Amino acid sequence: MLQPKNPDFKQTIIKKLERQHFMHHIGFNLTKIEPGCIEGELIIEEKHEQQIGFLHGGVTSTVADLVMGFAAYSLVDINEATVTSDLKIAYLRPGIGHKVIAKGRVIKAGNLLYFCEADIICIDKQGNETLIARGYSTMCAIKI
Amino acid sequence: MLQPKNPDFKQTIIKKLERQHFMHHIGFNLTKIEPGCIEGELIIEEKHEQQIGFLHGGVTSTVADLVMGFAAYSLVDINEATVTSDLKIAYLRPGIGHKVIAKGRVIKAGNLLYFCEADIICIDKQGNETLIARGYSTMCAIKI
Amino acid sequence: MLQPKNPDFKQTIIKKLERQHFMHHIGFNLTKIEPGCIEGELIIEEKHEQQIGFLHGGVTSTVADLVMGFAAYSLVDINEATVTSDLKIAYLRPGIGHKVIAKGRVIKAGNLLYFCEADIICIDKQGNETLIARGYSTMCAIKI
Amino acid sequence: MLQPKNPDFKQTIIKKLERQHFMHHIGFNLTKIEPGCIEGELIIEEKHEQQIGFLHGGVTSTVADLVMGFAAYSLVDINEATVTSDLKIAYLRPGIGHKVIAKGRVIKAGNLLYFCEADIICIDKQGNETLIARGYSTMCAIKI
Repeated sequence: MLQPKNPDFKQTIIKKLERQHFMHHIGFNLTKIEPGCIEGELIIEEKHEQQIGFLHGGVTSTVADLVMGFAAYSLVDINEATVTSDLKIAYLRPGIGHKVIAKGRVIKAGNLLYFCEADIICIDKQGNETLIARGYSTMCAIKI
Repeated sequence: MLQPKNPDFKQTIIKKLERQHFMHHIGFNLTKIEPGCIEGELIIEEKHEQQIGFLHGGVTSTVADLVMGFAAYSLVDINEATVTSDLKIAYLRPGIGHKVIAKGRVIKAGNLLYFCEADIICIDKQGNETLIARGYSTMCAIKI
Repeated sequence: MLQPKNPDFKQTIIKKLERQHFMHHIGFNLTKIEPGCIEGELIIEEKHEQQIGFLHGGVTSTVADLVMGFAAYSLVDINEATVTSDLKIAYLRPGIGHKVIAKGRVIKAGNLLYFCEADIICIDKQGNETLIARGYSTMCAIKI
Repeated sequence: MLQPKNPDFKQTIIKKLERQHFMHHIGFNLTKIEPGCIEGELIIEEKHEQQIGFLHGGVTSTVADLVMGFAAYSLVDINEATVTSDLKIAYLRPGIGHKVIAKGRVIKAGNLLYFCEADIICIDKQGNETLIARGYSTMCAIKI
């Protein structure tokens, strides 16, 4: 339903990923790049934890920001980039598991503002999924 | 004004930091631990950047979450921990500079919920400060 | 799926409505009361508008708060009430139409905190629906 | 510090108020109109209450939206209006008192986006003030 303005959005995103240093630093990878819809995952290691041994809330907010930001970026014109204007995370349950999956989507694409939502899901070694957080953001298109 | 229930809150926090793996992974350190008021800093390196070369929004949200979480944690009882219930970041300006400073404070301490705010500031090599984001969160005390 | 702790939640809510003065003042009525799921509607009149002639954002936030608050309230124990801890509204499109429908639901019910979401929809005289806003909130259960 | 683009912003706002129907419906009046800084007040009556007898959260969110919206509007060009993109309210304490005061300010004015904050304060008959909520919003300038 959502139409990308840049037909080569997938290649544009893949190229952008090279310089996504913080994303590489935490070990997150994209697994799906569709118009207005981005998914990715991360294998949980000790470095991702906070003091109680749960997934750190900063990892959750980072992967939410990434999939929502790229979901908006998949829809903009070739001479535009997107920046996060506003990010909110509702932490529903403790992050425990083997892997984190983040799914971001654009729920309203405007000329300038892209409203997005995300599901952050933990998966244990048996494959059981738990929704640990919901992300909500406004992304703003800027000319580059 | 804000009274800690645990008189040894400073030692309790310092001990907790050992297992704050994600905080160490990104290179953030606390510089001030007062009741309801926490500050910290991080030297910006390439690993903290997103594709345009600005500080990644995930770093901003992580350090905001850290200083607000510890600000709440400085006030709870010795048998309590705090978890983030809700985190919002308003990204005011691009993150550019040599160093990021995060300042978190509790604006209302309840029995269960701690409302917090944070300033995230970039500093260049000449010492000029720029407020790049504001953080707002609700922290929830849990028995441990 | 969501189980109410108070089997008479519907009667409890209907009785509470009598003293919901601000809800009556704006002319909003509930149309559906199910466990964790509340809907209501309001006929748009001139008194609900802002200066451009759109539905006022305060009406949108009020009806979002109402359906999310009652969605949480439908699940709590008979000796508990709920208060809004945190409310966020994403204003997606201008509010234009004959009627506003608000649909609130609990997405995670805890012991103390209830995370909720809402859809706010405008309907014109031909019955066409437009999603004008999404609401997100944390409701907190308190003993009464 | 904040410079209005429209030197007649005060008159422009006063004229706009005539058609602020929902603001009149709830009985809120502006008491201060300065560049990027707006205040107003409302005498609390039974119609503003929710079922427990506290100020309704919808009144709080409406007055927060109003003072932040006008704070942004005081800074835009004469051919621009502002719409709320994102509104968040942190409900710190129950709203009890004789009067509500709302103070809104722009914390960052951009070309398109205005980041705002608000204090919502209840005052009892003895003049004691209580901060009952904080509001945070992003306002977006649109050409008219």
